[in-house]
Amino acid sequence: SNNFFLLAGPCAIESEDMALRIAERVVEITNTLKIPYIFKGSFKKANRSRIDSFTGIGDEKALKILKKVSDTFDVPTVTDIHENSDAALAAEYVDILQIPAFLVRQTDLVVAAAKTGKVVNLKKGQFMSPESMQHAVKKVTDSGNNQVMVTDRGTMFGYQDMVVDFRGIPTMKQYAPTVLDVTHSLQQPNQTSGVTGGRPDMINTIARAGIAAGVDGLFIETHFDPANAKSDGANMLDLQYLESLLTNLTKLRQVVNTF
Amino acid sequence: SNNFFLLAGPCAIESEDMALRIAERVVEITNTLKIPYIFKGSFKKANRSRIDSFTGIGDEKALKILKKVSDTFDVPTVTDIHENSDAALAAEYVDILQIPAFLVRQTDLVVAAAKTGKVVNLKKGQFMSPESMQHAVKKVTDSGNNQVMVTDRGTMFGYQDMVVDFRGIPTMKQYAPTVLDVTHSLQQPNQTSGVTGGRPDMINTIARAGIAAGVDGLFIETHFDPANAKSDGANMLDLQYLESLLTNLTKLRQVVNTF
Amino acid sequence: SNNFFLLAGPCAIESEDMALRIAERVVEITNTLKIPYIFKGSFKKANRSRIDSFTGIGDEKALKILKKVSDTFDVPTVTDIHENSDAALAAEYVDILQIPAFLVRQTDLVVAAAKTGKVVNLKKGQFMSPESMQHAVKKVTDSGNNQVMVTDRGTMFGYQDMVVDFRGIPTMKQYAPTVLDVTHSLQQPNQTSGVTGGRPDMINTIARAGIAAGVDGLFIETHFDPANAKSDGANMLDLQYLESLLTNLTKLRQVVNTF
Amino acid sequence: SNNFFLLAGPCAIESEDMALRIAERVVEITNTLKIPYIFKGSFKKANRSRIDSFTGIGDEKALKILKKVSDTFDVPTVTDIHENSDAALAAEYVDILQIPAFLVRQTDLVVAAAKTGKVVNLKKGQFMSPESMQHAVKKVTDSGNNQVMVTDRGTMFGYQDMVVDFRGIPTMKQYAPTVLDVTHSLQQPNQTSGVTGGRPDMINTIARAGIAAGVDGLFIETHFDPANAKSDGANMLDLQYLESLLTNLTKLRQVVNTF
Repeated sequence: SNNFFLLAGPCAIESEDMALRIAERVVEITNTLKIPYIFKGSFKKANRSRIDSFTGIGDEKALKILKKVSDTFDVPTVTDIHENSDAALAAEYVDILQIPAFLVRQTDLVVAAAKTGKVVNLKKGQFMSPESMQHAVKKVTDSGNNQVMVTDRGTMFGYQDMVVDFRGIPTMKQYAPTVLDVTHSLQQPNQTSGVTGGRPDMINTIARAGIAAGVDGLFIETHFDPANAKSDGANMLDLQYLESLLTNLTKLRQVVNTF
Repeated sequence: SNNFFLLAGPCAIESEDMALRIAERVVEITNTLKIPYIFKGSFKKANRSRIDSFTGIGDEKALKILKKVSDTFDVPTVTDIHENSDAALAAEYVDILQIPAFLVRQTDLVVAAAKTGKVVNLKKGQFMSPESMQHAVKKVTDSGNNQVMVTDRGTMFGYQDMVVDFRGIPTMKQYAPTVLDVTHSLQQPNQTSGVTGGRPDMINTIARAGIAAGVDGLFIETHFDPANAKSDGANMLDLQYLESLLTNLTKLRQVVNTF
Repeated sequence: SNNFFLLAGPCAIESEDMALRIAERVVEITNTLKIPYIFKGSFKKANRSRIDSFTGIGDEKALKILKKVSDTFDVPTVTDIHENSDAALAAEYVDILQIPAFLVRQTDLVVAAAKTGKVVNLKKGQFMSPESMQHAVKKVTDSGNNQVMVTDRGTMFGYQDMVVDFRGIPTMKQYAPTVLDVTHSLQQPNQTSGVTGGRPDMINTIARAGIAAGVDGLFIETHFDPANAKSDGANMLDLQYLESLLTNLTKLRQVVNTF
Repeated sequence: SNNFFLLAGPCAIESEDMALRIAERVVEITNTLKIPYIFKGSFKKANRSRIDSFTGIGDEKALKILKKVSDTFDVPTVTDIHENSDAALAAEYVDILQIPAFLVRQTDLVVAAAKTGKVVNLKKGQFMSPESMQHAVKKVTDSGNNQVMVTDRGTMFGYQDMVVDFRGIPTMKQYAPTVLDVTHSLQQPNQTSGVTGGRPDMINTIARAGIAAGVDGLFIETHFDPANAKSDGANMLDLQYLESLLTNLTKLRQVVNTF
């Protein structure tokens, strides 16, 4: 279809019910719009600001739900890994292993992911330049795996804000297919509460700019009830707005395809 | 036409010939694409990094050339002012007075521009947030002039780089029509040479993202021979690429207009 | 005495009484500590965030007060200028002409100050690297004036914060005597209120670090009643704390002098 | 002695010989100056920019060398850990477990370190505010371990530079004893070569400012032959300059102790 692809789903897998419910709706929308869709869900949350934040429902339980989503809707899935030993474990259940932004400089973790033979999605560190992502990509290809993509999730701008540098998109496309994570790019970290804030009102703006700048894919966390989601509630898109967003982005992409 | 408008021209007015030659070509392109066009040219350059940089051909001589461009092609013109006394002088010759980014916090200068009754174009300081531009806009309207627009020209990112924060576009549109200056947004200041550098290879990317994000206008410096331009050569768009850029942007805008 | 020198006084000259009262106390303290002292006061405030902020009591009136302070206590004085025409005017009354950070790239203003033959104090733009200050210094010396110094007043860090980069001190000392402005370095600009905030609780920390890093001078705004000062109240040091601060800094300087 | 304490040693343990040679000299200097000394050495390097960078001589081999240094000179030791399983392993050999800056948001790793009962040294992420370190400290104390300290190693400033924000020192001292890492604070990351650069010429400036600002300890990587060190050569202090640096810093500290 030559449309952009989409990694979307809740931040964390909270239950089978919620995962299936979100997947069902996103599949429906993306089928209509001919958007290649990958279901996203974290099987654990390892880098919360506070020790009392939600960290997951159990690793294998969550991974099995990811597999069930894949089987039920015939869509590939992506999840993020945090320890070297997570790589082989998660690879049994999902199609894409994602390296979190904070961890993308951990060579052992990147190599462990690459060695599974699964697609590796490398998030650009908030502290890294687009150009420096070529070294992370090379760690995957040097491990004998050419299935690698990179995802921009914003760059630190002062202590409590992030900015998306759209110059990074053509830059990183030289190294690998490039995704824009519109959810985490709009975080506002280091808030005094210890809970990361955000600017979900800017999702449309950033997503449109990303498509216009030529991204290959988008990453969007979405939930039918963001306010009650167990993590990242501040930035997730309410599922009810996803269809209209993707419809507009698809139109924009059709024009970009003619350039 | 509901298309975006365009402020474009050379950085500095170097001679009548070059001004007319650039204007003629841009008028031709923008007429075809139904882009409202304002010819841009600085009558003096007051904030160069080095004392030996080119500063202009003479104030009135340059202003008269701006007037001649306006009369010849029936287009409005814009120029930037640096001293309070420049406001009344430039207002005799041009339609829009532009406050440079470095000077947008100088209350007297903003008020002097406002009091001429001309349209005032306020450039966002590289050191200012989008939100803080509301105070600059208010200085114009409090002076009894409602014809005001704002232009983003990027924000400092470290010492030697700038970034465009596209969240600023919907933010500043709340205050006034909002323009994206794709030329100066791509500057890389504070280079060790004392000559500002840039990323002209990113003009397409940033301009497209700007249209997608909903800007009202674009600001582009262009020259038929950027390498020999007397200022800002590092970032000006070669005139030969302008038509294809604007053609693509117009298509993008037509889609954005349907959102 | 080989002690650091001090530029200190209120932000703006509000009245003769307050100027003399502040000067008297600072002279007393600095005489005891053998700190060469220059009285500082702005004769107008030209770059306020909002049009309704206090801008001064009248230019000549304020300048005459500066002169009176100088005559009364036999101390040199410094004030900042904003327009080319301010240079000659202020030079009749004060010993040092200061170029504000926002304006340090305005070549005409720097040259106008230099041509008066007075000492020129160039504030580093919040958007400039320490290295780039060499070009500003050169504009003064190329105008035939070798009496030039530079002052660091912090660097933008995100939209609403500033940071002092102490690497800049040895860097700028290569070009000219270097001052650390502990008042404005601690500003937090672009607050949503339109009034600049600050971190006056960090004055001690930043001043001590500056002396240890080898600054030639310090710049401190001080007032006997900061909360009711007409500008910069958020960051001025309460005059009652000045003696103990300077006493500690003098001890620190004595050790640094042995390195 | 009320002097600051010192964490110092090579970046990575390259061999027993080099570790002992460096330790011997630092012990000699710190004994004379009454500086409490902790020998620092990494047993593996896990986050190199490039896959072909040196990563270590073998985990247990390196840890045993750390133990030997400790036994030989009767000094405590510190090393950094990267995987949860490293915590228990390293705790058998060293006194302080250090959490690298990139990993300080990994809750499991921080908790694993805390649970060993060893002192935990938390490096502030380059992407974190000083204030946000209170949450990291709390993860240690909530795990029943009150022996925790924090280390500032600079904050991202644009893509290719870092800055030390000295306001962070009094801020973090509210949470735990605070160390300034003068080596990594002066890194310049994301260089196009894929090898991190630095400003070792600024070690004196930053270290002095740190002592003046009241740090409890300093962290300095040092080597008798930095140019041939297997990692971080760009920023390590040549061992021959350590004595004079520490002598000056001790004098400075004596003054600060009187404040």
